[in-house]
Amino acid sequence: MAEEVKLFKTWSSRFGLRAVWALKLKGIEYEAIDEDLANKSPQLLQYNPVHKKVPVLVHNGKPIAESLVIVEYIDETWKQNPILPQDPYERATARFWAKFGDEKVLPSIWGVFTQEGKAQEELLGQAMENLKLLEEQLEGKVFFGGEKIGLADIALGWLANLICVLEEVSGLELITQEKFPLLFGWMQNFAAIPMIKESFPPHDKMITKYIALGEKYCPPVKGCIEELCEYQTP
Amino acid sequence: MAEEVKLFKTWSSRFGLRAVWALKLKGIEYEAIDEDLANKSPQLLQYNPVHKKVPVLVHNGKPIAESLVIVEYIDETWKQNPILPQDPYERATARFWAKFGDEKVLPSIWGVFTQEGKAQEELLGQAMENLKLLEEQLEGKVFFGGEKIGLADIALGWLANLICVLEEVSGLELITQEKFPLLFGWMQNFAAIPMIKESFPPHDKMITKYIALGEKYCPPVKGCIEELCEYQTP
Repeated sequence: MAEEVKLFKTWSSRFGLRAVWALKLKGIEYEAIDEDLANKSPQLLQYNPVHKKVPVLVHNGKPIAESLVIVEYIDETWKQNPILPQDPYERATARFWAKFGDEKVLPSIWGVFTQEGKAQEELLGQAMENLKLLEEQLEGKVFFGGEKIGLADIALGWLANLICVLEEVSGLELITQEKFPLLFGWMQNFAAIPMIKESFPPHDKMITKYIALGEKYCPPVKGCIEELCEYQTP
Repeated sequence: MAEEVKLFKTWSSRFGLRAVWALKLKGIEYEAIDEDLANKSPQLLQYNPVHKKVPVLVHNGKPIAESLVIVEYIDETWKQNPILPQDPYERATARFWAKFGDEKVLPSIWGVFTQEGKAQEELLGQAMENLKLLEEQLEGKVFFGGEKIGLADIALGWLANLICVLEEVSGLELITQEKFPLLFGWMQNFAAIPMIKESFPPHDKMITKYIALGEKYCPPVKGCIEELCEYQTP
């Protein structure tokens, strides 16, 4: 039987990109289905009845939801170019930082770009602390995974894609070469990998989208946390 | 070299219990170190400098934090009595429900017991929906893992341990045999497994603790969400 691999995502979904990168890393052909979240397809609702969100991978008719669960599924299903290392301790370390990215880095950074005043100041402090921890993880390494990208790189890849968009739209600066040289270098190295670069949504289109979100929700893009956090939508 | 396995937890930590259960399931001897969270040991801070929280597993000097990461580490390190199934799709399903438990079930149930009025009402609605989804998962099965307990059972095991305590302290009822017969049955079956039963913290001591928390933070135990959610502490 020929394998059928479908990926439900949106054109700009940073969580969808994780599945895209994992599939590309494995060299798996797939059909991409870009959803309109304002008008979700019956297929999406059928395949992810619990969260009703992208991304959803459908492999030979079987749906898998939650981006990090999808990435581990892809890694376990197609063995070439491993995303997780073999050693259990290294696997645990990769999972720890992937989780840290979603639970600490993402909300704090998003808060910096969506809050004002004292709340923003506090979140900036948290974001800087979290980024410092990531910076330390990159000591002596090209990627979080070592010489090549792994689970934590895929999980944190949204930084390489989105930080420059948020910085450009808001005028705020967060990850500079001066403050976080290793993390800044990692973003460059990550984004320079051809299969990563080619999968990034068009920068101009992202800028337009986030300016529109900012105008709708300002300051500067308040409220579109729903757009960023697949787990935090009400 | 003899294996050295230490587990930093608290006497009542429901996330610590996940690691306890996984170790017991594998038949691994370990040293339990019960922390006082008001006065954390230098070892805990050294082993979990990022979150400064229990549980932390230390295996031959190497620390692993985050309870679900610890459970997967234990499963990958000691192969006997697998916690996750072999099949990638079944593994993804187990991970999905474990995550659902932490991100949806836990906050909604905790909210029911810690909020009042309209907020409580809304959270009750969410909790009932979430529990209904768990109930559906148990159709034709004894455990979420099938005939024996797996990752999702270990992740959701806090329900079997804590719901009766919260119900007794608050006078509220949530998981009744009438409303959720399968989930109610699962809690009984899970709690009846000798190695699970023997690891539950003493019921009377739990009641005393939660009454004290309730008096401190009422209504009824408001504020101690920090005690329940390892990931949600400020």
